[in-house]
Amino acid sequence: MQTPKKIAVVGSGLVGSLLAIYLKKAGHTVHIYDRSPDIRKIQFSGRSINLAMSNRGWKALDGVGIGDAVREIAIPMDKRAIHLVDSLKFQNYGQEGESIYSISRGILNRKMIDLAEQAGAEFFFEQKIWDVTLSTATLHIGETERGEWDELEYDMVFGADGAFSRIRHRMQRQSMFNYSQEFLNLGYKELNIPANADGSHKLDKYSFHIWPRGEYMLIALPNLDGSFTCTLFMPFEGENSFASLKDRKEVEVFFEKNFPDSIEVIPNLAEDFFKNPTSTLVTMKCFPWTYEDKVALIGDACHAIVPFYGQGMNAGFEDITVLYEMILEYGEDWERIFSEYQNSRKPNADAIAELSYRNFMEMSSKTADDQFLLQKKIEKWFSEKHPDKWIPLYSRVTFSDRPYVEALAIGDFQNTIMEEVLKTDDIENMWNSEIVENKILELLQK
Amino acid sequence: MQTPKKIAVVGSGLVGSLLAIYLKKAGHTVHIYDRSPDIRKIQFSGRSINLAMSNRGWKALDGVGIGDAVREIAIPMDKRAIHLVDSLKFQNYGQEGESIYSISRGILNRKMIDLAEQAGAEFFFEQKIWDVTLSTATLHIGETERGEWDELEYDMVFGADGAFSRIRHRMQRQSMFNYSQEFLNLGYKELNIPANADGSHKLDKYSFHIWPRGEYMLIALPNLDGSFTCTLFMPFEGENSFASLKDRKEVEVFFEKNFPDSIEVIPNLAEDFFKNPTSTLVTMKCFPWTYEDKVALIGDACHAIVPFYGQGMNAGFEDITVLYEMILEYGEDWERIFSEYQNSRKPNADAIAELSYRNFMEMSSKTADDQFLLQKKIEKWFSEKHPDKWIPLYSRVTFSDRPYVEALAIGDFQNTIMEEVLKTDDIENMWNSEIVENKILELLQK
Repeated sequence: MQTPKKIAVVGSGLVGSLLAIYLKKAGHTVHIYDRSPDIRKIQFSGRSINLAMSNRGWKALDGVGIGDAVREIAIPMDKRAIHLVDSLKFQNYGQEGESIYSISRGILNRKMIDLAEQAGAEFFFEQKIWDVTLSTATLHIGETERGEWDELEYDMVFGADGAFSRIRHRMQRQSMFNYSQEFLNLGYKELNIPANADGSHKLDKYSFHIWPRGEYMLIALPNLDGSFTCTLFMPFEGENSFASLKDRKEVEVFFEKNFPDSIEVIPNLAEDFFKNPTSTLVTMKCFPWTYEDKVALIGDACHAIVPFYGQGMNAGFEDITVLYEMILEYGEDWERIFSEYQNSRKPNADAIAELSYRNFMEMSSKTADDQFLLQKKIEKWFSEKHPDKWIPLYSRVTFSDRPYVEALAIGDFQNTIMEEVLKTDDIENMWNSEIVENKILELLQK
Repeated sequence: MQTPKKIAVVGSGLVGSLLAIYLKKAGHTVHIYDRSPDIRKIQFSGRSINLAMSNRGWKALDGVGIGDAVREIAIPMDKRAIHLVDSLKFQNYGQEGESIYSISRGILNRKMIDLAEQAGAEFFFEQKIWDVTLSTATLHIGETERGEWDELEYDMVFGADGAFSRIRHRMQRQSMFNYSQEFLNLGYKELNIPANADGSHKLDKYSFHIWPRGEYMLIALPNLDGSFTCTLFMPFEGENSFASLKDRKEVEVFFEKNFPDSIEVIPNLAEDFFKNPTSTLVTMKCFPWTYEDKVALIGDACHAIVPFYGQGMNAGFEDITVLYEMILEYGEDWERIFSEYQNSRKPNADAIAELSYRNFMEMSSKTADDQFLLQKKIEKWFSEKHPDKWIPLYSRVTFSDRPYVEALAIGDFQNTIMEEVLKTDDIENMWNSEIVENKILELLQK
């Protein structure tokens, strides 16, 4: 336990709620502010990609003993179900028993807020924080941006208020603050596969479903109630784009042609397509993340990434794991805690941003490519024979807690090796031969 | 002449003033707002690098017939004077008769405001614009950010309000707005070489003086009154840094050791060093630059760059040249004018940002390197023999109006050629031989 501090967390999302639980564990008074209503009392907004919880997420939850409570609302997915236009293939994510877990963002957030309240954190909903005075950890709160504001003084403020963080907005106005936001020319839209009448799933429940089509793709993740949350990723403009699908007929024709096996399982396709918003995808980077021993950013507020590696929440939760390690190591020295936290996390946040950006290509194109599937098969085979010598990139990111920077660097090295290996004569038949095994072993020495 | 519009320009700096003159020429009502007092009525701030006006700047000034008025306050510099620790070398910038021009930012700005007023633009000083409503080109003006604001309605608003633009600040809060700001770990500080008692210059008047020392450097540009404005560029932290020079003694010892020939010409060294602020250097990029036919950013407000190519003002002035070309081409279609303007300028702004960033290394390190000076000598010799085949990078940027993107691409290509040429046996003596000439001609074919 540290000397108790009075701490404000801005943002009651997943990272804010979990951070509150950790800060309570460390002995502090914790107030959480959110501009939105209590998510436990409202309908969800209908523009969320389902979450894929993996090792880093579970580690952070288990660190405060709430992993099992969350496992109750999670569905394991041990493989990709790859829907080609004329066939269906499966590809395991990892070794036997390794899965990622589909969780509804809304259901998880409700659960996390319950758990944080049980831990003693106090929530203040529909309270709009517009600004922060960095040097005194004072929040400025009011009904409107241009109206009257009140001041709330704390010992410390955490900005867990997402990609468009107001806390970061103030930090941005300091000199020497590096910042970038970059939008993809790609949007996404939520669609829905309802449950069968008996509550069972219309597609394989334990798969991450993907319809890879190059410039665009459809994915579907299972929900507890038998439905799937689907997400269509597609360019805003161009030949196959949101702009090109202007009416119900065009949407239906497009899906019939390109996602034929989705037609019978998405009954409200055209209706949902025009009812649900088209959302944007942004990569946001910044530095520094902290101000003296007063203010720290965490999660999407300091490193928003695109969703193609399923690591956004996992990376945010890992921020908390690392912050808590620093608390254990540096005790009362909050300036040191903050500075070690940001220096440790920043390169890893940049690495997962890069990996996530690249992974759109992998998901939307390469999963439909036989060479790529062969490469994955060889990697899996070699990795099973030599688990000490080869952890596939996806596994290192998803099923380990090795640093993301290491995953990025070793992944690139492995790719150069596999490029060589795929040049082997008759590799389609030789892929699990001693020749290939020795070639990989030799290339690993270089 | 276009249909007259009521146009607001935010920012009375160099770009804002020149833009106002162009907009008057096109027949519009032009109001210019600035949060600062009229620069003609105050002392300068003492934290400005002198400007180096080159071809693109002159072209924009001559386009509205004010080049000659500005030439009266400019000093031509046809060469670099390179102050090594134990010697002085000169290096011409271009061909015979080609110079860049030293101008004091303050003196030029006063002149430009006079000229804009003469052209019929109206200036409103000490008027703080805090926000803009993009869809209606409405400015929000008031004493303080949190106080009462009034509204000013226009047909069109230009944000010429520099790297920390409030107009861009509003645009940044739109979805799909890409933005980055990145600070160098390098600061700068202004120092002064006063005139001799008779008003003459203490160093060669027609040179850009540079003391290249690797991680840091000193430069000096001539003023009309016989003085030089000096700028010290140095890391904030580390061995040779602003942080490492803590008292008068340390500053004096540092200058005696590293800039020995500067000691006798900078009499108030230590005093100025601690009196003058240490300023930061930022590269800022964004896109889009315009909003419908209502709002456009121009100059540093949309592409702030580091000063090492002397192109910041020149690039801003070239924005105006291009905007005016679009006005002449597209007449009343302001949405088209804005969209062609930003699409034409954005890649060039990115290119000069990159060239400027790279040029710190050239100025601070390579100008002290014999291989580099030899390379420049060969390029100059070859370019004089084959002016149609080789325009050196510096000349293309500085003495031409070829696009910056072209300069960047061809400059990289030329560098690969010169790398090969410098490998020639006995190149120090062979540099102007037929063998070298033929080698370059051959490499240019590839």
